Amino acid sequence: VSFARLPSLADAIVWIDREIVSSLGAERVPLAELSGRVLAQDLAAASDTPPFDRAVADGYAVSAQDTFGASVYSPLTFRLAEASAADLATGLAIATQVASGSPIPRGADAVVLPDHVQHDPGAATVEIIEPAIAGANVDQRGDDFSRGTPLLRAGRRIRPADVGLLGVAGIGFVEVVRRPRVRLVVTGADLYQVGQELPCGGVYDADTAMLRALVERDGGTTEIRRVEHRVSNAIREAIVGPAADLVIVVGGSGVGAEDVPVLRALRELRPGDDAGGLAIHGIALRPGMSTGMGRVGSTPVFLLPGAPVSCLWAYELIASRGVRRLAGRCPELPYLSRDFMTVRKIVSSIGFVEVCAVRRMPEPDNVEPSTAAPPDRAGSLLATAQADGFVLIPEASEGFPPGTRVRVYLYEDANSCRDPNYL
Amino acid sequence: VSFARLPSLADAIVWIDREIVSSLGAERVPLAELSGRVLAQDLAAASDTPPFDRAVADGYAVSAQDTFGASVYSPLTFRLAEASAADLATGLAIATQVASGSPIPRGADAVVLPDHVQHDPGAATVEIIEPAIAGANVDQRGDDFSRGTPLLRAGRRIRPADVGLLGVAGIGFVEVVRRPRVRLVVTGADLYQVGQELPCGGVYDADTAMLRALVERDGGTTEIRRVEHRVSNAIREAIVGPAADLVIVVGGSGVGAEDVPVLRALRELRPGDDAGGLAIHGIALRPGMSTGMGRVGSTPVFLLPGAPVSCLWAYELIASRGVRRLAGRCPELPYLSRDFMTVRKIVSSIGFVEVCAVRRMPEPDNVEPSTAAPPDRAGSLLATAQADGFVLIPEASEGFPPGTRVRVYLYEDANSCRDPNYL
Repeated sequence: VSFARLPSLADAIVWIDREIVSSLGAERVPLAELSGRVLAQDLAAASDTPPFDRAVADGYAVSAQDTFGASVYSPLTFRLAEASAADLATGLAIATQVASGSPIPRGADAVVLPDHVQHDPGAATVEIIEPAIAGANVDQRGDDFSRGTPLLRAGRRIRPADVGLLGVAGIGFVEVVRRPRVRLVVTGADLYQVGQELPCGGVYDADTAMLRALVERDGGTTEIRRVEHRVSNAIREAIVGPAADLVIVVGGSGVGAEDVPVLRALRELRPGDDAGGLAIHGIALRPGMSTGMGRVGSTPVFLLPGAPVSCLWAYELIASRGVRRLAGRCPELPYLSRDFMTVRKIVSSIGFVEVCAVRRMPEPDNVEPSTAAPPDRAGSLLATAQADGFVLIPEASEGFPPGTRVRVYLYEDANSCRDPNYL
Repeated sequence: VSFARLPSLADAIVWIDREIVSSLGAERVPLAELSGRVLAQDLAAASDTPPFDRAVADGYAVSAQDTFGASVYSPLTFRLAEASAADLATGLAIATQVASGSPIPRGADAVVLPDHVQHDPGAATVEIIEPAIAGANVDQRGDDFSRGTPLLRAGRRIRPADVGLLGVAGIGFVEVVRRPRVRLVVTGADLYQVGQELPCGGVYDADTAMLRALVERDGGTTEIRRVEHRVSNAIREAIVGPAADLVIVVGGSGVGAEDVPVLRALRELRPGDDAGGLAIHGIALRPGMSTGMGRVGSTPVFLLPGAPVSCLWAYELIASRGVRRLAGRCPELPYLSRDFMTVRKIVSSIGFVEVCAVRRMPEPDNVEPSTAAPPDRAGSLLATAQADGFVLIPEASEGFPPGTRVRVYLYEDANSCRDPNYL
């Protein structure tokens, strides 16, 4: 095998979109666990909300018409009644004390604020000194929304305020898209847990923790299987283990002798498959060239390079799309993007989509590569950590001279502090 | 008590920033749990990375100088040696097979790709048909970063790719800001769990689940205490319970008879305090006017209205800032914002900061209120659910005519699908 002529990143995306057509099935979750999940059903109000006419301020419920003519100079006297006993009708001049949020008695249509009422402690009557308008300080039944009102649609990613809306509507359980269970099969003999003493030739396993964070960002959960010795049997068993919705094999994606067992395991899982178990292996993408993808049974399998920087971009630009499709998320890159002007040259090789991490300049619409290191390190982990976003340079391009408008995918999110004064 | 002359939202923010000056202390967490946390220490590389000269492709490690003159027409013969045994020197014409990521032998300075090597199975020699440049396909020790290189700074919110960077650097445990433990004291007699049968006059408790989602968004954890009967004793006990970093009391924030026990509980917790337990009670904000704030011992306490729409905005615009400050997050609103033009009138009352939920129009920079309902419902939960963001109308303003540029806080995030084609 060699990677002489490689499918493009676009080919890989077409494959993913064709193979993972729909999101996973639904599961019922309680309101308290709903935030961030993707709705699997349209939701409508089952009843009028509020379910009764309700005071929206503390005060005195009255029939507004009875207060006509009231003023400081000619206060009108109202008889106080218990809210529970009261069944007001216009012309009776009855007031009942109500608290914000509580039902107002039948027949009342306004709440007079305490500022407009003279109420001596213990008195059986009160004086109203300002006329009320019908409906003042009252929410009528169904004012929030009436029965049948559409609230949220399937596909919605639930925001915290949506939880409040559904709570008010009395919707305690909701169908959401099940989280994809992603199995990470991490292969390699010289991988050491981060923090251990590192013998010569050993490398830290940075991929497991990084992929776990990435998969969770995309709405999935992870289950980790380490295969220390790249033996086909062990790899095969790890891949076919129970109940994964998507499998990511990490390491052994290349075409050298140490990679053979991984490829053999995949081939043996699909005997008779001409493509050797993988539908695509090798993509015109840097970092991430040795990425592969296929299916085992009905489960999509991605093969990612073990080198952490390659693993990062192979997941970000390829495998993550599969996770998001299963999760019912937007399949596109999970970054806001907009155009900037590059003020330094961005260099790239023809024939590959390449990644260049960029940082924003003091001028609002300018960016430059975040590292002065050579172009093949423009997407390195350090360059990425120092970046505000990244640029993808198309296969047909040798890069961009200064002054080019480039599309930047931004790491900036709502928690970045860009606008310190909101008043 | 009445809310005749109210402190402004700006006053409330000044109070919070003065009372919550620094974030909580640090805790050590393992790499696998780091994503999304806020760094409490600067991190630098403890050693050179990679720790050895390393092949970045499968191939044959050689001394580049020995390959000078090689071509298809005059291949150069190299003796194959085991990587472990080899200690190359220029002029020996020795090649050792290496896998991507593995150390290259001392003395070798380039890796020739298999495409440029003729290697008959079992042969003790290989033919090299293209000269290699020194450094080709080799990462030298420290090429990623050398010992002492600053990696990430305190205050950084850890991204998934940062986890990879720290993993590569061998940093297995990191000091991060502890998550604020937020106690929610939810008060009220007629509150029913969402989904239960609702008796007349009862309302669903939408606040607990909504606040839980909001607090978690802001980096906190929640502990929930329900106080069904608003009795001062019970409320006081719930507030002073052990080990909360911040307390949010929900409901009973008004000035009616039903609110008295909550205020009394707070007052009794600060005997002799002229302000009656709360430094601020009542804010020129709608929804959310009855919000209060103070301290019990060293713990900040926020008193939020129980009506869900008021509770939402009181948390969003006031209490959440306290949580974010403790969490070491950016204290500002956790929304991206930018200017839009309103194409419909936005109405507001003078004397209050008011919230208006808005939706984007097909024209890229236009917004309108997301509801046609009256202005006092412009920030309702339904209007908010149907919105792409919200506008805050300053106290001194009666609103904005069509054609005004307004600052919009956007719900849009990286998971909103706005840019479906990233290639």
